[in-house]
Amino acid sequence: MSAMPESLLSRTAKVDEQAIQPFPNSKKIYVQGRGKDIRVPMREITLSDTPANFGAEKNSPLTVYDTSGPYTDPDATIDVRRGLPRVRSAMIDERDDTVVLRDFTSAYARRRASDTNLAHLRFAHPHRPRRAKTGMNVTQMHYAKKGIVTLEMEYVAIRENVLAQEIKDAGLLMRHQGERFGASIQEEITPEFVRSEIARGRAILPANINHPEIEPMIIGRNFLVKINANIGNSAVTSSIEEEVEKMTWATRWGADTVMDLSTGSNIHETREWIIRNSPVPIGTVPIYQALERVDGKAEELTWEIFRDTLIEQAEQGVDYFTIHAGVRLPYIPLTVNRVTGIVSRGGSILAKWCLAHHKENFLYTHFEEVCEIMKAYDVSFSLGDGLRPGSIADANDEAQFAELRTLGELTRVAWKHDVQVMIEGPGHIPMQLIKENVDRELAECHEAPFYTLGPLATDIAPGYDHITSAIGAAMIGWYGAAMLCYVTPKEHLGLPDKNDVKEGIIAYKIAAHAADLAKGHPAAQVRDNALSKARFEFRWEDQFNLGLDPDRARAFHDETLPKDAHKVAHFCSMCGPQFCSMKITQDVRNYARDKGIGDIHLAIEAGLKDKADEFKRHGGDLYPKA
Amino acid sequence: MSAMPESLLSRTAKVDEQAIQPFPNSKKIYVQGRGKDIRVPMREITLSDTPANFGAEKNSPLTVYDTSGPYTDPDATIDVRRGLPRVRSAMIDERDDTVVLRDFTSAYARRRASDTNLAHLRFAHPHRPRRAKTGMNVTQMHYAKKGIVTLEMEYVAIRENVLAQEIKDAGLLMRHQGERFGASIQEEITPEFVRSEIARGRAILPANINHPEIEPMIIGRNFLVKINANIGNSAVTSSIEEEVEKMTWATRWGADTVMDLSTGSNIHETREWIIRNSPVPIGTVPIYQALERVDGKAEELTWEIFRDTLIEQAEQGVDYFTIHAGVRLPYIPLTVNRVTGIVSRGGSILAKWCLAHHKENFLYTHFEEVCEIMKAYDVSFSLGDGLRPGSIADANDEAQFAELRTLGELTRVAWKHDVQVMIEGPGHIPMQLIKENVDRELAECHEAPFYTLGPLATDIAPGYDHITSAIGAAMIGWYGAAMLCYVTPKEHLGLPDKNDVKEGIIAYKIAAHAADLAKGHPAAQVRDNALSKARFEFRWEDQFNLGLDPDRARAFHDETLPKDAHKVAHFCSMCGPQFCSMKITQDVRNYARDKGIGDIHLAIEAGLKDKADEFKRHGGDLYPKA
Repeated sequence: MSAMPESLLSRTAKVDEQAIQPFPNSKKIYVQGRGKDIRVPMREITLSDTPANFGAEKNSPLTVYDTSGPYTDPDATIDVRRGLPRVRSAMIDERDDTVVLRDFTSAYARRRASDTNLAHLRFAHPHRPRRAKTGMNVTQMHYAKKGIVTLEMEYVAIRENVLAQEIKDAGLLMRHQGERFGASIQEEITPEFVRSEIARGRAILPANINHPEIEPMIIGRNFLVKINANIGNSAVTSSIEEEVEKMTWATRWGADTVMDLSTGSNIHETREWIIRNSPVPIGTVPIYQALERVDGKAEELTWEIFRDTLIEQAEQGVDYFTIHAGVRLPYIPLTVNRVTGIVSRGGSILAKWCLAHHKENFLYTHFEEVCEIMKAYDVSFSLGDGLRPGSIADANDEAQFAELRTLGELTRVAWKHDVQVMIEGPGHIPMQLIKENVDRELAECHEAPFYTLGPLATDIAPGYDHITSAIGAAMIGWYGAAMLCYVTPKEHLGLPDKNDVKEGIIAYKIAAHAADLAKGHPAAQVRDNALSKARFEFRWEDQFNLGLDPDRARAFHDETLPKDAHKVAHFCSMCGPQFCSMKITQDVRNYARDKGIGDIHLAIEAGLKDKADEFKRHGGDLYPKA
Repeated sequence: MSAMPESLLSRTAKVDEQAIQPFPNSKKIYVQGRGKDIRVPMREITLSDTPANFGAEKNSPLTVYDTSGPYTDPDATIDVRRGLPRVRSAMIDERDDTVVLRDFTSAYARRRASDTNLAHLRFAHPHRPRRAKTGMNVTQMHYAKKGIVTLEMEYVAIRENVLAQEIKDAGLLMRHQGERFGASIQEEITPEFVRSEIARGRAILPANINHPEIEPMIIGRNFLVKINANIGNSAVTSSIEEEVEKMTWATRWGADTVMDLSTGSNIHETREWIIRNSPVPIGTVPIYQALERVDGKAEELTWEIFRDTLIEQAEQGVDYFTIHAGVRLPYIPLTVNRVTGIVSRGGSILAKWCLAHHKENFLYTHFEEVCEIMKAYDVSFSLGDGLRPGSIADANDEAQFAELRTLGELTRVAWKHDVQVMIEGPGHIPMQLIKENVDRELAECHEAPFYTLGPLATDIAPGYDHITSAIGAAMIGWYGAAMLCYVTPKEHLGLPDKNDVKEGIIAYKIAAHAADLAKGHPAAQVRDNALSKARFEFRWEDQFNLGLDPDRARAFHDETLPKDAHKVAHFCSMCGPQFCSMKITQDVRNYARDKGIGDIHLAIEAGLKDKADEFKRHGGDLYPKA
């Protein structure tokens, strides 16, 4: 174990006060499903009326997708020592295909639970784990393939329909690219559509039966693009309490899932605190903990230790596991001449193991046994790209694509067991090579959802990799990646703090939203339109509140025009009153209104006549040559 | 005029101390041209040796393109009251086609010069303006069309070749897309190539004969992608001194040109200070000042006032003018039903003028006279997109494209006068509509360089528009835009301060570099490779110094691992020593080395055999179906 100071959690763990403030002019609403247990949270943003000089109209409130969980509900009681309410318990109970165990199956979990030295770190109200009844398969894919629409599926259908009514009201039928994605983007997402996408493996609904605290969500390219935030202490720094804070902070700003990548001491206890308090699915990379259990000596890893770790984490409630089963022995030499070799931690651990034993990766050889464990808890695979490029120089090389082919092979194996699968992707890719990644992934991995880290579009901006990678993330989301793993400004330099987490999240909400827009998702367009209208009408408060970060927008505005009066002023500090184009445009509109619509048509006709004359002048060439 | 307090410049105007620090481990070098007056500045970054455990090799210094001017040269004497050395004077003199005037031609300029109330604001050492000799045309395009390679052209050829030697040394022949751009990307840029690109209008070299302080640069899609930073006081806030500081700050971090968009009082004096101290071309939007001269009443604008403003600014040394001559009367009604109407300040001013008089835009009707002025000083056109969309909702609409067609028509007119032209572009565009903008611009504007503002890929992140727009900017640069106008985090909210300027610049250096990479520019790849190699070898200082912002990278690193010792440590705070993939990869390499290269081939063969077996197992289907 590390010689660094041990992480500590205060016994009086408090909720992060910043994370439980409701958003300005917003309220939490719950949309009721047909099933009694389905109450889908959304955030409704109240808007002010359009001022008289812009036409005096009511602006309906705008509803947005909400990942922040009960934390932003003023009616909810938050106690991080007890964890969140177990909203999914009834859904799981209803299926009557699981049993509650008396104790953890994992020997390691039991040892940690009985170690009195760890009492001060331990989650105060441990749960009793569940497992599938013998012979049962409890994955959402299993139900989906049988034609069963689960309550979780109904829940996500409602959740994905966040602006369906507004879209209908606006008569929006967007220019869109739904066709590319094998299913046109729906006016309304039905529970049956959710089921069918899960059944054919094109989407996953990560929801471990031991994580009843989550508000179900779906990852697939025919749904809203999702983002993941990585948190986790390392051997060098940070405490459990900080990690729980980062998790609530990340979901407040929009993380759809959170990966706990802890590598330091007390991984087991840290994870319990995170899962019990997380309203979003939690992912992990179990090999990190397995390595801790062999004191960091990769060559001492065994399938037995790894297996125990999988079961330990599955019973805690981890919703998806990154499994680097594609790092095969024969691919390792392909990385030797790379500029940056193997940069995936998991990938490098397994590469070292393979070489030390000169044996095939034990995750590959034991893959069916891994599937057997996953389906007893409904843990989804996130098939890790252990050989992803770590630099622009290494992008789209043979090592990367060799592994991708193997991930495609493993996807088929997992699906045989009805285990849900997503595929991890790079990393560092120059723009012109991004699309190839999506196209290959779809072809070779049979359309399993693609979950990419960035990619960074250049390597030359350490300190700004949330931006270098937001460029790649937006593009790959547009091309079809289903979930984007965030990168913070600290990437390559240090461990992100709470502020870095927020910077990373917002950059990725931008990327995901830009991708939804580019894919033609009408809900994305509705929010852009509402904000643009507010901007044009100088409804400053609405402009702030419709944005991804109302706090920052307001603070920036107030730096140059601090007076409240200016927030209703019909100009701003960039141009001042004389140069305000918005104001002048309104004059243009008023002119058009006063002169009557006839004049506009006349003017347009004049324009056309004019173009016609020009056309003649140039002898009728559409693009006249000089 | 505005009722706001008058801007002031301290009579003891000081240089910005932050802006004159040389970059760490960097030195200014000058590459000598054939002409005696050509000394092209570059920045050379010294690198440390590769440590023994990574192979102990020397790393040659890396040279990077440098826009920071004499400010970062410790041997230069900086005195903002005197301005920069006039490095181009000899180039201009040599051509012997200009005359030095006794006084400014503009009545307004003369009035300002003799107003004793303005003495405290006035630049201390005014220059005497130059103009072309009667009947002469002094534009770079004019020389180029005559087959003359000017000293400025030779200068930019050297400047664009910044890493030519390293590219040859590395034997890099990048996968690239040069073909798309009508000329393959050159291994080396020749002065003749520069000339030919300018002659055919595919690139501009903005260099007013009254701005001898600039270090010549080129804008065109067969050269490095450039970025512009906007500065300028408004009626509401900021002083001359602040604007000069922002300019030096912007060029330090990489601005290739700077636009002075001042709209408040004392525009004339502010501009003089900026031009005299700027090593990069300066652009303006003359209509802003013309409007100040009619007290903000757009309808009172006249051609005569505008004409006087053009001459005033041309004689001060402005290198390019944004001229909104494409905002034609018949197009204005096309904007009435937009969500955000007309958002260009210049566009809205002219729209108002057109409607008030129900006349065609006077910039359109007087366009040839504008050309006559421009060619007497070599001011380049930046044909303004006054009808650009102000929101995602309005992207790629009829108003925008109607104006673009007119800009194409005006390009031909300008070229008839041998006046250099670039075309301004949007603005706010969802990703899937970006490429159409470039394709149309190239077709309709006859391949004149495209200079775009962002575009923002979504509107929902006020406070983060440097990021929303860096996404669009990177893409449009890749597709063929030649220069990217930055957007700061304050966009839509307030006037950027010095820190915002830097944030905007770095975001845009990322976008431009990512575009260069995607276009296959070998120089871009060389820098990425050098940084990635430094990262892999844990040469922390080199990693910081090769980045766009060494200060921030170092500060972020030091937050979690503050000890100097850690900067040579072979791990970092993210993973700690046990989980370091770089370290493990080196173990893999050592293994491969110890076992000999034969084993690697054996392993690869094993991999191929394995793939072959799999192929057979699936009955020979390349993509086996389940």
